[in-house]
Amino acid sequence: MIITIDKSKSNGVIDTLGAASQRSGASIRIIDWNDGSLSVNVLGQIEPDVLIHPAITGVHSATRPYRLASKEHRERTVVRVGEVEIGNGTPVIMAGPCVVSDVEQLITAAEAVKAAGATVLRGGAFKPRTSPYSFQGLGEEGLRILAGARAATGLPVVTEVMEPDQVEITTEYADMLQIGARNMANFPLLRKAGKARKPVLLKRGFSATIEEWLMSAEYILSEGNSQVVLCERGIRTFDTSMRFNLDLNAVPLLKELTHLPIVVDPSHGTGKRSLVPPMALAGIAAGADGLILESEPNPDSAKCDASQTIEPEELARVTRKALALSRLLGVEDLVSG
Amino acid sequence: MIITIDKSKSNGVIDTLGAASQRSGASIRIIDWNDGSLSVNVLGQIEPDVLIHPAITGVHSATRPYRLASKEHRERTVVRVGEVEIGNGTPVIMAGPCVVSDVEQLITAAEAVKAAGATVLRGGAFKPRTSPYSFQGLGEEGLRILAGARAATGLPVVTEVMEPDQVEITTEYADMLQIGARNMANFPLLRKAGKARKPVLLKRGFSATIEEWLMSAEYILSEGNSQVVLCERGIRTFDTSMRFNLDLNAVPLLKELTHLPIVVDPSHGTGKRSLVPPMALAGIAAGADGLILESEPNPDSAKCDASQTIEPEELARVTRKALALSRLLGVEDLVSG
Amino acid sequence: MIITIDKSKSNGVIDTLGAASQRSGASIRIIDWNDGSLSVNVLGQIEPDVLIHPAITGVHSATRPYRLASKEHRERTVVRVGEVEIGNGTPVIMAGPCVVSDVEQLITAAEAVKAAGATVLRGGAFKPRTSPYSFQGLGEEGLRILAGARAATGLPVVTEVMEPDQVEITTEYADMLQIGARNMANFPLLRKAGKARKPVLLKRGFSATIEEWLMSAEYILSEGNSQVVLCERGIRTFDTSMRFNLDLNAVPLLKELTHLPIVVDPSHGTGKRSLVPPMALAGIAAGADGLILESEPNPDSAKCDASQTIEPEELARVTRKALALSRLLGVEDLVSG
Amino acid sequence: MIITIDKSKSNGVIDTLGAASQRSGASIRIIDWNDGSLSVNVLGQIEPDVLIHPAITGVHSATRPYRLASKEHRERTVVRVGEVEIGNGTPVIMAGPCVVSDVEQLITAAEAVKAAGATVLRGGAFKPRTSPYSFQGLGEEGLRILAGARAATGLPVVTEVMEPDQVEITTEYADMLQIGARNMANFPLLRKAGKARKPVLLKRGFSATIEEWLMSAEYILSEGNSQVVLCERGIRTFDTSMRFNLDLNAVPLLKELTHLPIVVDPSHGTGKRSLVPPMALAGIAAGADGLILESEPNPDSAKCDASQTIEPEELARVTRKALALSRLLGVEDLVSG
Repeated sequence: MIITIDKSKSNGVIDTLGAASQRSGASIRIIDWNDGSLSVNVLGQIEPDVLIHPAITGVHSATRPYRLASKEHRERTVVRVGEVEIGNGTPVIMAGPCVVSDVEQLITAAEAVKAAGATVLRGGAFKPRTSPYSFQGLGEEGLRILAGARAATGLPVVTEVMEPDQVEITTEYADMLQIGARNMANFPLLRKAGKARKPVLLKRGFSATIEEWLMSAEYILSEGNSQVVLCERGIRTFDTSMRFNLDLNAVPLLKELTHLPIVVDPSHGTGKRSLVPPMALAGIAAGADGLILESEPNPDSAKCDASQTIEPEELARVTRKALALSRLLGVEDLVSG
Repeated sequence: MIITIDKSKSNGVIDTLGAASQRSGASIRIIDWNDGSLSVNVLGQIEPDVLIHPAITGVHSATRPYRLASKEHRERTVVRVGEVEIGNGTPVIMAGPCVVSDVEQLITAAEAVKAAGATVLRGGAFKPRTSPYSFQGLGEEGLRILAGARAATGLPVVTEVMEPDQVEITTEYADMLQIGARNMANFPLLRKAGKARKPVLLKRGFSATIEEWLMSAEYILSEGNSQVVLCERGIRTFDTSMRFNLDLNAVPLLKELTHLPIVVDPSHGTGKRSLVPPMALAGIAAGADGLILESEPNPDSAKCDASQTIEPEELARVTRKALALSRLLGVEDLVSG
Repeated sequence: MIITIDKSKSNGVIDTLGAASQRSGASIRIIDWNDGSLSVNVLGQIEPDVLIHPAITGVHSATRPYRLASKEHRERTVVRVGEVEIGNGTPVIMAGPCVVSDVEQLITAAEAVKAAGATVLRGGAFKPRTSPYSFQGLGEEGLRILAGARAATGLPVVTEVMEPDQVEITTEYADMLQIGARNMANFPLLRKAGKARKPVLLKRGFSATIEEWLMSAEYILSEGNSQVVLCERGIRTFDTSMRFNLDLNAVPLLKELTHLPIVVDPSHGTGKRSLVPPMALAGIAAGADGLILESEPNPDSAKCDASQTIEPEELARVTRKALALSRLLGVEDLVSG
Repeated sequence: MIITIDKSKSNGVIDTLGAASQRSGASIRIIDWNDGSLSVNVLGQIEPDVLIHPAITGVHSATRPYRLASKEHRERTVVRVGEVEIGNGTPVIMAGPCVVSDVEQLITAAEAVKAAGATVLRGGAFKPRTSPYSFQGLGEEGLRILAGARAATGLPVVTEVMEPDQVEITTEYADMLQIGARNMANFPLLRKAGKARKPVLLKRGFSATIEEWLMSAEYILSEGNSQVVLCERGIRTFDTSMRFNLDLNAVPLLKELTHLPIVVDPSHGTGKRSLVPPMALAGIAAGADGLILESEPNPDSAKCDASQTIEPEELARVTRKALALSRLLGVEDLVSG
């Protein structure tokens, strides 16, 4: 059972629900949506009497396996990364290098992507690599460099965490935690991210169904972290013409199933630089709330993912077109000329 | 080896090439691109002397398994369906019911999709059905009804052929032959369509790689039919949230590999009515030359594919937005406002 | 509705059912199982009175989309190819070259595979090739060579048909028609094969579900040809370590769903010579009724599929082990030593 | 570069290599294969002089991305779980319930699977579940119960670890650590398991390629843990007739690529009880070194995976047949009777 609460009138109601749950052997989880409303997820039975309270705006039985992530529960969630809002109708452009190499590289890249119109900086400090012999990222040193780039540019920072023990330190430096495709079903990591005080960018596992993906979001939400953004980044199919197949169908389908914002990563989703701009725009046309792109000056010398990294000039073009396209499609009564 | 020829100066050159091929035991195939140029595909060796002729504008060795379909060979092909051009920069909207049921249904549907902005009418007379017990289409009767709808509306007609023996009769009635996903590797059918005097809409097999698809196009081209349009209609993946996964990555990838136009079918590509409009627009944003959509009045009573058929009002909205979006993206030096 | 009939007492009953169907606007299809029983598939309503007849041994409503192929309808079907029985408990080994090149090659190969224990000869006269420029088989000439090899060795012959127009001529020469993976959903071809007087080896499309495959078998059965053998030959997955992934799970699953025999093709199913023997034996352990293998002397010089063709010596080892393994697993009360 | 060393003569050579590496800025990793040989993986350059030493039996450049796991490096590895050897030619049967529920359930199950011929006990204490609301296992309490079952039956115990922090405690209780499919690319977990003093059962990710899987094994080996067993447990394909598709092709393919033992899990690999016995036997016929099976008395009341759990009587039949089949196939010069 999920109970929705008007925070402005909530005094006492959480305690009442907590006490009632304890009496009946149930447990509760509280999710603060940062917009004046709370959800209380009751696991178990509770006395019906306590549900009559002026702060309680709704009581829903959970009809889907993902209760809190479901659109049956909420219409829309806007996630805040620093000052940036994701899910408010205007696409957000997140960009930066694959991996943080050194201070100079990152500052240069951060300034370039900011000039190109990006409003969130991405970059990896902890890197999951298929081979134990590949460069694995700078770790905490990389986090410090990211924080420096934020100080220099004002851009909030999103970066990946790979294991529960990295969540705390990453939360200190970054504005948003990224959970990568390989860790979408790393349940201990999801739980830990659910306890963090920062928003989470949850990438889709490259062979995860839409329902499995929403269940992973549910892990984070059910621990009390309401600030989850979904990121489509390509699935694995029989076709190896591309590294992965960006599955844009997921975008409008998720819009029907969940209130969480969804962004698209055409860099990993195609693995091919020349396909990034058209697929980025296609993502926006499909209804995405934003893009996350690998971009830095001199992409050919990038320490990883060089073949899918675009130049800042290209990023600027994509950004301009994405915003224009979003405005165009937002005009409901568009008349053909 | 492929020889390109300026048709205006070609007098005698084809005969010369034919005679030279015969002498050396080679064979030749002639492809007329309908834009003043010819390609001659020489299978085998030929005397080099005959290659010096004012009408010969280029001689290329074939470096890809698909020689004639490759962008190495031509920059762009515009295909004409009746008076309609596919591949000239303005998206073409092809629409109509899944299957032709009777005269009244089709005329009504044809007028509705024409009013909504479609310029080509689609509709099935021969229907491939998974079950032998399902309705298999009206056959030649359906072709006659399609021709009647063309007469009534002026819209050229595209319809599916399922076996070599249907090609001739279909060519008499229709303006474009469709080869469906299940028949993409039906090589006898491809050869027969290659000999037809009508353009061909070649759908991608739902588990065909991009290269296999282009090889199927090559079958048609190599028989002398230059008028081939590729149609992405969804691939089969592990994810069964949708009937198929429309693979928009194929659009920009094909633009790099082939000169043939490519259209997108979001109706079969998603199998879900609500996903058709956003995926149609995403297809245009990805660079498609057109859309093919299942649409008719009262879609819920459609004899097949009801769940993916949209109403003409929705079709009109999609058409307006698709054209506006295409114009917007065509403005290269778009400046953000 | 499906009616089962004891052929020995059937005099008059078929006519009665036919007349009754005609009266009520239904149609009937008759399938002769070659074991003294008939099935009559009634499409439409029929008067219940006619169902009381001593020859009628059962009346079943059709609860699955594949009515005649379903195990609900029959327990087991044994298919006869020449004198060879498929599905009687002893595995059948079918072997031979990918393609028929000339008389000498085929006779040599046929004698070698016979000596190795194979009891059916395979070989292609009509070949589906991805490229229009590859060798496409000898056609009718190849059929004559196959018939010659049968005369020389006594082995019945199975060979592929690619289009409806090839069915008649192939039926004259061959003992079994093969429908290849690319044509599993070529419905006009299935219908034509359903009218042929020869058994059919129906390969699984490489991205066909089990149900789609059974529906294709239903096409053949519903036209009156009861002699259908299913052949698993590898599916397409994300893993390209092998050409295809032989899906042995299909074998025990089909044993639960259908009465038709099933054989396994580890040559196409793996595309790699060294994997053929272990996967052949695994197929038998999974319960297959036989194997179809590409084998000829000097496989490295084979005109197609060289990399998956095994030598006759290897074929002899596989055959011996397959038969021993089948006997071992047939001993139900096996006691460990 | 990989250096192989005869342990009996190795005195001083490791120190010499370590010192030389330090001088040239390289680092070394030592893998003890538990059979009298060591491998030293040198990451970086080293003076060639130090390679002349009586204990050094080979020096290999690394030609594959997986250096230590490759068959180029070693012919065969036998892994010891308690007293049980995996990879010595006789299949090992590992069995037990999906999840540990309580002492009585596990002792009963352990005794039943032992009586049925299993020699290793499986059972989950930490359970990865798609839903945050499902039972997640007993944790350390489950580990204690597993250790108790080992004490009662003498069977060594394998159980799953889900995060780096669980490795140490699990190593104290269990004889073998299992890394599940969802964690195959959880690199911090692989590293931690590479430092553990217990063998590791590494399941294949359900959409991992063979190479990615071997790279994950390389993570464990490169940290110094030589005792790795690979476990095929089904891949995700387009076909949803079964929960997963057990990919037996992987077994003979891995035998060509790696010296590590490989076992097969037909319980998760099919998700369907009736398919477990035939696919288990097919796995042995394909060359697997063992099986891991979900089995317990009264499987229908199992707390998880009930539909794929077999009864101990069925397990006994599978075990007997698997051993007989393995002996039969081991007889190289098998003569047909």
